[in-house]
Amino acid sequence: MDISRLKGFREFLPDEMEARRRVFEVMRQTALSFGFGEVDMPSLERLDLFRVKSGEEIVEQTFSFVDKGGREVTLIPELTPALARIVAHRKDLQKPVRWFSIPKIWRYEEPQSGRLREFYQFNADIFGSSSIYADAEVIALAMEILHRLGLAGKFQMRISDRYMMEAILRELGDVDVDRAFRAIDKIGRADEGWIQNELISAGIPDPDEFMGFISSHGGQDVLDDIEAAYPSTRPRCERLRDLMSLLDAYGFREHVVDLSIVRGLAYYTGVVFEAHDAKGEFRAILGGGRYDTVVKLFGGEDTPAVGFGMGDAVLELLMRREGVWPEERFSPDVFVASAGAREYAIEVAMKLRREGFRVEMDLSGKGLSKQLRYASRRGIPFVVIVGDREMEKGVAVLRDMAAGTQVEVPLKDLPALLRGRLP
Amino acid sequence: MDISRLKGFREFLPDEMEARRRVFEVMRQTALSFGFGEVDMPSLERLDLFRVKSGEEIVEQTFSFVDKGGREVTLIPELTPALARIVAHRKDLQKPVRWFSIPKIWRYEEPQSGRLREFYQFNADIFGSSSIYADAEVIALAMEILHRLGLAGKFQMRISDRYMMEAILRELGDVDVDRAFRAIDKIGRADEGWIQNELISAGIPDPDEFMGFISSHGGQDVLDDIEAAYPSTRPRCERLRDLMSLLDAYGFREHVVDLSIVRGLAYYTGVVFEAHDAKGEFRAILGGGRYDTVVKLFGGEDTPAVGFGMGDAVLELLMRREGVWPEERFSPDVFVASAGAREYAIEVAMKLRREGFRVEMDLSGKGLSKQLRYASRRGIPFVVIVGDREMEKGVAVLRDMAAGTQVEVPLKDLPALLRGRLP
Repeated sequence: MDISRLKGFREFLPDEMEARRRVFEVMRQTALSFGFGEVDMPSLERLDLFRVKSGEEIVEQTFSFVDKGGREVTLIPELTPALARIVAHRKDLQKPVRWFSIPKIWRYEEPQSGRLREFYQFNADIFGSSSIYADAEVIALAMEILHRLGLAGKFQMRISDRYMMEAILRELGDVDVDRAFRAIDKIGRADEGWIQNELISAGIPDPDEFMGFISSHGGQDVLDDIEAAYPSTRPRCERLRDLMSLLDAYGFREHVVDLSIVRGLAYYTGVVFEAHDAKGEFRAILGGGRYDTVVKLFGGEDTPAVGFGMGDAVLELLMRREGVWPEERFSPDVFVASAGAREYAIEVAMKLRREGFRVEMDLSGKGLSKQLRYASRRGIPFVVIVGDREMEKGVAVLRDMAAGTQVEVPLKDLPALLRGRLP
Repeated sequence: MDISRLKGFREFLPDEMEARRRVFEVMRQTALSFGFGEVDMPSLERLDLFRVKSGEEIVEQTFSFVDKGGREVTLIPELTPALARIVAHRKDLQKPVRWFSIPKIWRYEEPQSGRLREFYQFNADIFGSSSIYADAEVIALAMEILHRLGLAGKFQMRISDRYMMEAILRELGDVDVDRAFRAIDKIGRADEGWIQNELISAGIPDPDEFMGFISSHGGQDVLDDIEAAYPSTRPRCERLRDLMSLLDAYGFREHVVDLSIVRGLAYYTGVVFEAHDAKGEFRAILGGGRYDTVVKLFGGEDTPAVGFGMGDAVLELLMRREGVWPEERFSPDVFVASAGAREYAIEVAMKLRREGFRVEMDLSGKGLSKQLRYASRRGIPFVVIVGDREMEKGVAVLRDMAAGTQVEVPLKDLPALLRGRLP
């Protein structure tokens, strides 16, 4: 029997989990500080939920199956459809709603660096606002998370507008917009010759010139150039100018206009964005944009929406490279060693536990020197030693393992003393 | 197309999630205070991983399928096998290891009150200690969580020992122990006539008397009765006496010896326990015990283990009935209303966000009175109002929505003022 862990799946032991928890907690606290509320959705859904938005091609990339009740179901490959379903059907929601979540997501793809079959994905969405303020707020949330994770200046937030790109393509002639988008989306990831051919097939007359044009990126100046070359882009350039100014006001400096960002998925409308490692070493850190038509697809009223998703795999690669991944170390604060007087040791441990300390208690019943050796090997910074003598006096001995010193204190003073000594 | 949520699966919006987070956080903090480290395992595993421990019958109750690579896989119906696999193969682990986790778990069973197809399950296990201190520590952790959740006195921790029951059954004659266990496990849940018949078929001569005997529960006195009636139980009774005394020392009062607890699963060895609603209204809140042979089953060295699992469904039912389920309400602390001066409004919002407040910002761009009406409807307790005048003076207006009062403060003093006013 093969009982090994599946390829592309991970397990985390306490040291690793301690670091990951910290990263997730930064995401959570940042989203809460932006007034976003946390939600949680099923991990298994009917496959049709995803067909509605993404068509049949999504099926290949999912862990889908027929369940014992004959239902075609799948592990969720993304969160948005479940959210759109709620927004479509719950008329009582006060809009705009601001939601975030950090679910596990599954994709049946070949695992490689930064791409797993099971991963966590931070999601944030605003439903019910078509304002550019909403676009700015969502992008600012993404950038603020990266800043709080220690990545200020280490990434670029590349922003474009699919309607702007559509206007450009239409000015170029009779272009197959979807095909052109798919080719643009592959820039930097697929063979350049293939991309050029695709652009020609899509009806772009001079792919060399076009590739050169969309490779420019920067601030307001790039928007001026686009508007000069393709006048019909004007309203979308205006909107992007506003967005860039708003992000300036948030105090960020990593945002640039980048025409090569189109996001492959066909449902995006208007603004799209991706954050990339500033050194260009990894796949996108996060991606998102407007999807104003999705809620209606799920049977709801026209409800504008904007949001993004950020997996934990590329983020971890980048944070490790930049030396800002949290220390992977879990340790209790204190070990309670018992030299007899087990009941008293339990009482002392419970007192400290209720004061908020992480307290490991001896389970071996072995001699004191063996217990101390264990605590030392385990790297626990403090040991509280209690025996019959301590019980009678109502005291405990606190030993600082690094210093090798110890002090006897009344039990009631132990929590305060310990709190003062712990970092 | 049917895109509805699957039966037995739940979704949580921010109000509900706020409450659930609090409950999970109590579980996490309690486990950490006991020196347990958090772990996280894959949600999908090869089906064989579960066959090793539970045989073929587990398959019927799982969301299992053949993936696109031809692997027989399943959504995990429990966490223990993945943990046992790690303990079996990682020789570097310092034992005893104390691990906890709050994963999603899936079971293909008919949904009913307190039983879902997808639920969260708090798990805690100690691997590598055969000591009764480990049994006590794990049961104490379970009881401490229930206490911290406001359920002191509202539950009963029913404890037995499968080896003790085996000794009893053997004294009764040539009894089919497994069959008898399965019947005992169904007491209170299956038809009494069926149970009696099963006990007879298992070889128990007087099922009436037997049922009467095992229905007694209590403290040390029950153990005395058992030992008097079935002398071969003596070593196990001694062990249970120690366990009950240890739980006394922890300061708990809800633990009782209850012979009807055997836990259906065949792999338990020695001590078993279940926590039940004191009023007997619901299914078991949690269950666990010793499983000293499981790690060896997974190819490891003989490694004693003890642990328990607690789903969130019955727990929620009980907490709601007792009025201790947390308030289901999510709200930002403050709404930033902008009367022009959008850049300044953003600056003010970001300042408060970085000070840890939950800050929702206006996205509408509408007039001030509409923004105030929105914040009021949303139940946000404070509104910060900024416009051109406030920007020029470097101040903000803080409005207390309940009191209807407002005060102008220098921007630098705003966080302290707000902190003083929030509960």
